[in-house]
Amino acid sequence: MTDLTHVDSTGAARMVDVSGKDVSQRSALATGRLRTTPEVVAALRENSLAKGDALATARIAGIMAAKRTPDLVPLCHPIAISGVKVDLTVTDEGVDIAARVKTADRTGVEMEALTAVSVAALTLVDMVKAVDPAAVISDIKVEEKLGGKTQEWRREAPPVRGSERSERLGGATGEGEWHR
Amino acid sequence: MTDLTHVDSTGAARMVDVSGKDVSQRSALATGRLRTTPEVVAALRENSLAKGDALATARIAGIMAAKRTPDLVPLCHPIAISGVKVDLTVTDEGVDIAARVKTADRTGVEMEALTAVSVAALTLVDMVKAVDPAAVISDIKVEEKLGGKTQEWRREAPPVRGSERSERLGGATGEGEWHR
Amino acid sequence: MTDLTHVDSTGAARMVDVSGKDVSQRSALATGRLRTTPEVVAALRENSLAKGDALATARIAGIMAAKRTPDLVPLCHPIAISGVKVDLTVTDEGVDIAARVKTADRTGVEMEALTAVSVAALTLVDMVKAVDPAAVISDIKVEEKLGGKTQEWRREAPPVRGSERSERLGGATGEGEWHR
Amino acid sequence: MTDLTHVDSTGAARMVDVSGKDVSQRSALATGRLRTTPEVVAALRENSLAKGDALATARIAGIMAAKRTPDLVPLCHPIAISGVKVDLTVTDEGVDIAARVKTADRTGVEMEALTAVSVAALTLVDMVKAVDPAAVISDIKVEEKLGGKTQEWRREAPPVRGSERSERLGGATGEGEWHR
Amino acid sequence: MTDLTHVDSTGAARMVDVSGKDVSQRSALATGRLRTTPEVVAALRENSLAKGDALATARIAGIMAAKRTPDLVPLCHPIAISGVKVDLTVTDEGVDIAARVKTADRTGVEMEALTAVSVAALTLVDMVKAVDPAAVISDIKVEEKLGGKTQEWRREAPPVRGSERSERLGGATGEGEWHR
Amino acid sequence: MTDLTHVDSTGAARMVDVSGKDVSQRSALATGRLRTTPEVVAALRENSLAKGDALATARIAGIMAAKRTPDLVPLCHPIAISGVKVDLTVTDEGVDIAARVKTADRTGVEMEALTAVSVAALTLVDMVKAVDPAAVISDIKVEEKLGGKTQEWRREAPPVRGSERSERLGGATGEGEWHR
Repeated sequence: MTDLTHVDSTGAARMVDVSGKDVSQRSALATGRLRTTPEVVAALRENSLAKGDALATARIAGIMAAKRTPDLVPLCHPIAISGVKVDLTVTDEGVDIAARVKTADRTGVEMEALTAVSVAALTLVDMVKAVDPAAVISDIKVEEKLGGKTQEWRREAPPVRGSERSERLGGATGEGEWHR
Repeated sequence: MTDLTHVDSTGAARMVDVSGKDVSQRSALATGRLRTTPEVVAALRENSLAKGDALATARIAGIMAAKRTPDLVPLCHPIAISGVKVDLTVTDEGVDIAARVKTADRTGVEMEALTAVSVAALTLVDMVKAVDPAAVISDIKVEEKLGGKTQEWRREAPPVRGSERSERLGGATGEGEWHR
Repeated sequence: MTDLTHVDSTGAARMVDVSGKDVSQRSALATGRLRTTPEVVAALRENSLAKGDALATARIAGIMAAKRTPDLVPLCHPIAISGVKVDLTVTDEGVDIAARVKTADRTGVEMEALTAVSVAALTLVDMVKAVDPAAVISDIKVEEKLGGKTQEWRREAPPVRGSERSERLGGATGEGEWHR
Repeated sequence: MTDLTHVDSTGAARMVDVSGKDVSQRSALATGRLRTTPEVVAALRENSLAKGDALATARIAGIMAAKRTPDLVPLCHPIAISGVKVDLTVTDEGVDIAARVKTADRTGVEMEALTAVSVAALTLVDMVKAVDPAAVISDIKVEEKLGGKTQEWRREAPPVRGSERSERLGGATGEGEWHR
Repeated sequence: MTDLTHVDSTGAARMVDVSGKDVSQRSALATGRLRTTPEVVAALRENSLAKGDALATARIAGIMAAKRTPDLVPLCHPIAISGVKVDLTVTDEGVDIAARVKTADRTGVEMEALTAVSVAALTLVDMVKAVDPAAVISDIKVEEKLGGKTQEWRREAPPVRGSERSERLGGATGEGEWHR
Repeated sequence: MTDLTHVDSTGAARMVDVSGKDVSQRSALATGRLRTTPEVVAALRENSLAKGDALATARIAGIMAAKRTPDLVPLCHPIAISGVKVDLTVTDEGVDIAARVKTADRTGVEMEALTAVSVAALTLVDMVKAVDPAAVISDIKVEEKLGGKTQEWRREAPPVRGSERSERLGGATGEGEWHR
């Protein structure tokens, strides 16, 4: 098995030394979803003020959280994030969340993207929990990681849910604007 | 439809006034899971130092994150948390996460419990991503909420996955110690 | 002269002991304004997406900042804020900002209200500075303080600008909802 | 009208991508003022211990706040600040505040300078509010921005208050030490 | 041996539940010292501007750090601190530091007092390290803890250094003002 | 006497401008110790779950605190830490703590290393204080600083305690892994 590089031979946690890695352009895309009731989806779809603000609040919370990642995840390096974009798409089942984070630094930004998605999702739960206390956050994962040593990593399309997911990615990640 | 009480008539976000609510004993239990590869599960199961620390790091990150909830979720009230417990159980598919948070305050702590679970899960992803860059966080949700006006809310067992889930709850939430 | 109670006889700063003060319902209202160009005002007034989001972002930033007050202002006590409301009104000259903060605690929340107004204003500057790098933040002040030992303090209407200001207060502070 | 580059075509807030901008030496100067009573001005002028510490506390609060800017202003980038200087000058009407911030990074530091001024001002209000609950913060604005694409931006002297302002800048910004 | 109540039977860290403890008046006094060179002591004693500000900066840093204790020490509860006082006394060998913290809450504030002392000491090192890179922080410890279940705990005077220490306590803790 | 470069001619604190300094590989090693009772040492030595977790919690707290240094120490620059390692060695008298921090930046990381040691020590006190309320933190100091203008600074071995100290350094700093 390959080693877990965040842990030394005595099992003690440490923040691995990345000073030998190159500064390069890196980006990561993470996604996740909130599953909620038709009642909440309707409220979000009607474009009522409530809906608008739930999405705006979650989006801003996600962006701010990306910057707080090293404060939250113990072994993450502080990173000079150069851009963050959080996209929220209301679906029949809830809200699809996508976050792209960019940097020019020595280590990747997938944790920042995942943190943005997670906190956007938590914020949506907070906004809707009076109506749907049973809302569920799921499928938070890295979709794509560019730059650095590996250059490019993309999640393989799952056999079952592929068509639905690619639709979502097409819309939610705003490729027209932040392509690569 | 019942109103979304976090939003006023003009759609603007606000932190609702809870000063009229009673200070009472409240607690919340939230759960979630990390799905990862057999290779990572084996590393966690062998009780190698790596495993121990991944879990210890995630547990501490979750506890600390519960305290940061109002810094992360824009409309959450600052709350005097009186206790936090994060339980991690390694399964064949990854790690089950449960967090119970207690308080004696004017508003519930389900967001604190959900935040603890989310950040513990993010930390686990950070610990294993060198081995499994495709790990997925899923099923983050409130299981139980006690105290306050509603007194008691419990998630109904889902028809399909019920047996598996109750097993997990029995083990992961350490009911022997923090019952209620 | 009355003493500055935050400083002891040797001139050293300290956080004064409030443990002897009563827990009581307290609230504070603070206001401020952003002065900017007709171009920016028009963009805000057209209700374009840009406008909507500048206001939403500033409102959320203000609410979150109220919670961070003791992290920013060295001698402020940590306070269990029970509610925050930030109102933004676009005028011909820019944006009027009002923040009301409530608590049930041992000390007042005027610093929290002033911090909410200040950070909402800073956020507006950040949103518009590409169009108007010369935008000015002004007139950040406490309007009203209720509860605690003094029970009630209200700023006297200034002789010159009184009518304009009372108009603003009527609209921006949403008295219909959060009266007292 | 030029576009508000912080907002995409759907009105959603995002942190714009600056990874394509050059790392260069940048600095910004912002100013503001606290207007208070002769009683407070006298206390500050007598160089009593109270005065000394109010200024020292505000200065340190301003410096620390400059570093917290990306935590407060949602769409600000994290920036590697290389220097911060906060100058406070007691005048007949209150305190003039000036903050200069320097960096070698991809984006400007005017928000950091404005945040330093704002939090120094809030701290002064906190120090004097027992004596003057009506103190007002005003005229927070960028005076000068150097480096980056625009190279140099300076606020034009206002026709009415020019002489007073240039006097203040001469003293408060300590040009002898941090010239440019 | 008595149990370490912060750890459950499986060795996992948790924040112990204090919701059953009474809210009561509590205070703690902690001390520590910075040992540095005669050169630095002279600079601090001459009451030069450098000295004054090093002490003011350290004092404010200590006060602010007391409020951040639950963000730093993983299993500390968030506490509504009601007062903090940091005293610094220049001696022939360096600086003696004392911090008293008060609260009306469910758990003691000795960690807050120790954190205030530690961060004040770190700040002093930062202020003097250009002159004395070898400065040492030592003897950080709780002196006294009042309130709560134990009512009163006081460190016994060490046999060797007692006279020196009691002198320091007499001066540094400002008993005239914050007696108990 | 050489000047204290953090203070200008008027005694006001400022964050010195380091934009003219070179970005270079830098590292710092700091150490400290917790002195406690044989009872606590035994609990730590028995490798009970309690022991494991006290050390793991302290280690993680130290790593996270290194990242928070500029939030705690007022005049510290934000630094892009590239690695942190906290080593804890149980001795007959308590726990020896060592932290090495690395960066590729414009200023040194000794404050980050000292902060990591201090907060790890505070966390240990929090873990053991129910058993030993009299535990003492001592001898927090920089051992070694590499890179930057001075290239290399090492603390001279103290005449009395030299052998004990070099033993500790050999073990606790894990030179095999992070040599230089």
